[in-house]
Amino acid sequence: MKRNLLLISNSTLYGRGYLDHCADEIKKLLDNKKTVLFIPYARPSGLTHKKYTKIAKDCINKMGFELKGINEYTDPKIAVEQADSIFIGGGNTFVLLKELYESGIMDLIKIRVERGMPYIGTSAGSNVACKSIMTTNDMPITYPPSFKALELVPFNINPHYLDPDPNSKHMGETRETRIREFHFFNQDYVVGLREGSMLLVKDDNITLKGSTGARVFKNNKEPLEIKPGEKLDFLLK
Amino acid sequence: MKRNLLLISNSTLYGRGYLDHCADEIKKLLDNKKTVLFIPYARPSGLTHKKYTKIAKDCINKMGFELKGINEYTDPKIAVEQADSIFIGGGNTFVLLKELYESGIMDLIKIRVERGMPYIGTSAGSNVACKSIMTTNDMPITYPPSFKALELVPFNINPHYLDPDPNSKHMGETRETRIREFHFFNQDYVVGLREGSMLLVKDDNITLKGSTGARVFKNNKEPLEIKPGEKLDFLLK
Repeated sequence: MKRNLLLISNSTLYGRGYLDHCADEIKKLLDNKKTVLFIPYARPSGLTHKKYTKIAKDCINKMGFELKGINEYTDPKIAVEQADSIFIGGGNTFVLLKELYESGIMDLIKIRVERGMPYIGTSAGSNVACKSIMTTNDMPITYPPSFKALELVPFNINPHYLDPDPNSKHMGETRETRIREFHFFNQDYVVGLREGSMLLVKDDNITLKGSTGARVFKNNKEPLEIKPGEKLDFLLK
Repeated sequence: MKRNLLLISNSTLYGRGYLDHCADEIKKLLDNKKTVLFIPYARPSGLTHKKYTKIAKDCINKMGFELKGINEYTDPKIAVEQADSIFIGGGNTFVLLKELYESGIMDLIKIRVERGMPYIGTSAGSNVACKSIMTTNDMPITYPPSFKALELVPFNINPHYLDPDPNSKHMGETRETRIREFHFFNQDYVVGLREGSMLLVKDDNITLKGSTGARVFKNNKEPLEIKPGEKLDFLLK
């Protein structure tokens, strides 16, 4: 299958600017493309589509590409049909997925990306590229028609993955416990992508990029620690 | 309206035993009741209904009350109809709410509790007592038919509430940011119940119990800090 995806844990790393830590990978992925279609539906901190698009535009422009928000089109379907590449930004995964369904572009995005159109996702934008949004960290502040996502890859991501803190006195579930609970009801791989990490998916190959590593979870198995640069092709089988 | 509820942030406080920190309030709430109906549907860490009921039974027995799990009845509806009092334990809120809907006992619980039957909830069990589960911290590992909950009270709770950590380098949303995002789409009060806190709801009165305080959020308003012992009757208006 054709795949050309960059699935990023987080858009902003502590102490750095928006998309700074993943700018080189974004530029390589976009390669000879001229324009990026931005999907601002996840609305971080309730930002309007317009304001969120402005932030993405300023940043992507500096990398040498044009960017247009899907909100700047009358028909979101035409926006996707005409796109050169697509970037779905982070925010609230439930708000994002609901809007993707309601705008009727789920199938269209899938068709275009499976024919090789570059796809960039950060945080919630990486969640919706996966099989389902069932391993998001976000609050379910709105009710989407399904938790099924774009299924551009046959596994799930947990973005902003946090290792358990042995000194914590907080009794809420750790991220690992939550993912284990997911595996009582589901069998799919879950990639815990630490902030600073991203998956580069090229056809049937996956490489872990970034600096912080990742942790791969599977039901009835011990978690696997993956180092930057390592391959994760097994996730696609 | 008749109400006799104890909505607890967390079942186990750091360094203490199961229900230790809220045992006195539970005993007072149950008063002259003899038996407790336990709902183990939230399955923390994937625990079976049987094992989870055993943990609750051992603890509630020591307080001087009998406990029976809803799983010990052939018909869950009869279990609720015959109950003296009800205790819904914590775990995964999505798993819990789905099972409550599927077992057909949502309306029955509501009717019984609105006629004065004592209701105890911990964590996810407190979430489902509220208007919706939209302010849970849990992963959406299963898809319930709605996010609408029992509506025993007209507001929401965020259990295990965590104050922002000024020293954190983690870029994932803080709890406060997530609740603010909720308020872009919803108007209900949200009570951020720190671990160690609980709400005692008696008819039209609410008192904050426990040792750690709470934070009340409302759209377009500054959060309110509430101290142990303070009244929150305004939440019911």
